[in-house]
Amino acid sequence: MLQSLEIELTSNKKQQPAADQLGFGNHFTDHMFIMDYSTDNGWHKPRIQPYQPIVLDPAAKVFHYGQTIFEGLKAYKTDDGRVLLFRPHKNIQRMNRSNERLSVPELNVDVVIEALKQLISVDKDWIPTAPSTSLYIRPFIIATQPQLGVAPSTHYQFIIIMSPVGAYYTEGVNPVKIFVESEYVRSVKGGVGEAKTAGNYAAGLKAQEIAKEKGYSQVLWLDGVHRKYIEEVGSMNVFFKLKGVVHTPALNGSILDGVTRNSIIQLLKHWNIEVIERPITIEELYKASQNGELEEAFGTGTAAVISPIGELNWQDDVLIINDGKTGELSKKLYDTLTGIQMGKLEDPLGWMVEATPVNV
Amino acid sequence: MLQSLEIELTSNKKQQPAADQLGFGNHFTDHMFIMDYSTDNGWHKPRIQPYQPIVLDPAAKVFHYGQTIFEGLKAYKTDDGRVLLFRPHKNIQRMNRSNERLSVPELNVDVVIEALKQLISVDKDWIPTAPSTSLYIRPFIIATQPQLGVAPSTHYQFIIIMSPVGAYYTEGVNPVKIFVESEYVRSVKGGVGEAKTAGNYAAGLKAQEIAKEKGYSQVLWLDGVHRKYIEEVGSMNVFFKLKGVVHTPALNGSILDGVTRNSIIQLLKHWNIEVIERPITIEELYKASQNGELEEAFGTGTAAVISPIGELNWQDDVLIINDGKTGELSKKLYDTLTGIQMGKLEDPLGWMVEATPVNV
Ligand SMILES: Cc1ncc(COP(=O)(O)O)c(C=O)c1O
Ligand SMILES: Cc1ncc(COP(=O)(O)O)c(C=O)c1O
Repeated sequence: MLQSLEIELTSNKKQQPAADQLGFGNHFTDHMFIMDYSTDNGWHKPRIQPYQPIVLDPAAKVFHYGQTIFEGLKAYKTDDGRVLLFRPHKNIQRMNRSNERLSVPELNVDVVIEALKQLISVDKDWIPTAPSTSLYIRPFIIATQPQLGVAPSTHYQFIIIMSPVGAYYTEGVNPVKIFVESEYVRSVKGGVGEAKTAGNYAAGLKAQEIAKEKGYSQVLWLDGVHRKYIEEVGSMNVFFKLKGVVHTPALNGSILDGVTRNSIIQLLKHWNIEVIERPITIEELYKASQNGELEEAFGTGTAAVISPIGELNWQDDVLIINDGKTGELSKKLYDTLTGIQMGKLEDPLGWMVEATPVNV
Repeated sequence: MLQSLEIELTSNKKQQPAADQLGFGNHFTDHMFIMDYSTDNGWHKPRIQPYQPIVLDPAAKVFHYGQTIFEGLKAYKTDDGRVLLFRPHKNIQRMNRSNERLSVPELNVDVVIEALKQLISVDKDWIPTAPSTSLYIRPFIIATQPQLGVAPSTHYQFIIIMSPVGAYYTEGVNPVKIFVESEYVRSVKGGVGEAKTAGNYAAGLKAQEIAKEKGYSQVLWLDGVHRKYIEEVGSMNVFFKLKGVVHTPALNGSILDGVTRNSIIQLLKHWNIEVIERPITIEELYKASQNGELEEAFGTGTAAVISPIGELNWQDDVLIINDGKTGELSKKLYDTLTGIQMGKLEDPLGWMVEATPVNV
């Protein structure tokens, strides 16, 4: 497996940014992984090479017909120098589900994990260690066939790039204000909302910009059919604590099956806290709040991990959650999950995968 | 306007394909147009250069968050050597509407048309002249900022490439068989179906592949909310002739506002044939067929112009239209529209824009 991996090292290492200058997704490591696909040869020619531009024919299908899939996961360096990945198989398996939906060829999960470990090994010095920092990993696939016709591409590239990152929200773990979107729709059943594909994110920009202008960090998406069921918050899944029980929208075909979402559900069950996956309407949430039953709300995702929600605005009806403060459970989930990820806490559910370079 | 256009001519002209080897979107002319955008400088540096690869950082937003818009229009060479464009302003205006929806900066329509004329002038020898051939023009915009964060890009490129093309469907103007899609959805109100953006096309591939496996050329899309209103056929708008009157789905936010659709409506009105834009259910269509009222059906789009529909399959209920033959009106519309486009027929509605190079 990956016996044929070619590694070309850079002769020109970049200067690394200071820990407090990282931001999110602004800086990239010295190397990248690439693998090609053609209908004739399948996935082939895996290689690690210096981080460098992608060179594509202007007719490459990715520019015109949007066949592209991505993933996002993180690597952490522990205090004792080990490198840990958080549930990487989950991401590559999801990538394959996205691939299936977008008619992109399937990847061999083990080959990709192995490639990722090799890439991390080459760029190990790029994993930041300051609190709240990590190495964000972005595997993605683009359709490269230079042909203007709406049909699946015959050629693709699978690429992994990596970025040392700080906190996603500059606000940190503080609660964010969320605008409930009534006009624009992120996705609908039968569409591609379940897939991590570029078009979904472009489709969400407009609503996000309008929300920002109104002073909100993000939008809460409602379903495209009834415009009442809660789907996601920005690019995060969403949870609500109602009278001690945690509720989250059930996966329904238009919601992304988040790795963090799945982990939160498992962790809560592990703690014997009840979690219910079901359709949740925005109206119900407002009623629960009026009745004093809405205790906490938070988004979950790889980038921000847990993002508490302090305020919702639904058609000018403003709802303050937990006095706009981070709830106790949200905080505990954040601390536990990041603690496990950084290797500071025990990993009771066997999530972390060691990717410590052999020669570290 | 465009005074600053830089033109770099190729020193290495390609061999042109034979007229019967064209296909659609396989071959590209010797040159391309490019213009850059940055938030600081707006659109700048318009240039024509030899057709060449696009070089992008792997973190360029187009690969990850799908901010990309395209258009498609055609140029024709007339028997007396003039070059005609079909309603090009319509395409660039639509591009701006797509831009608006996807948070991409607006273009100056006149600048783009001027750029296009210049590019055509440089590559005038590439416009094919055999029957059913034309020069397909693909303007597109891609987000180039190398940053992993879901927010509009600060940098873009606007590019025009051109491809000499034959007929879109190898079947020619013959009727196609269409599968009515009940599971997958192309777009929904509140989404980006009205915009010509890459993600819409990737989202449609799966259904298209399944339809192909079943022996159908394309799918007919139903609306994402009720799953009963007819939206489009593949990447075409759709028309039905019922008892002498022509009906087409009303623009509703999830249907692309086709230039051909608009032209067909105008042409029918010009001929005093009644056209009604309204919501049309698939059930109604089947009933009309049973009552002998469904006389013709056809798709419309720049690529195929008019594509007659000979058969529909909706949940295994097969409906044959006009004995599977091209209808009289479909044929007349095809002949008239292509006649006007090729400069063989009078242009009663003032559609054609002359782009004849000065030194031809
Ligand atoms: C649309 C969307 N929803 C939810 C999530 C959360 O998923 P995960 O926890 O796997 O990061 C993401 C991405 O990260 C996303 O893009
Ligand atoms: C989704 C879709 N619908 C309809 C059309 C027809 O539009 P036009 O007549 O402008 O080519 C197109 C494109 O060409 C399209 O991509």
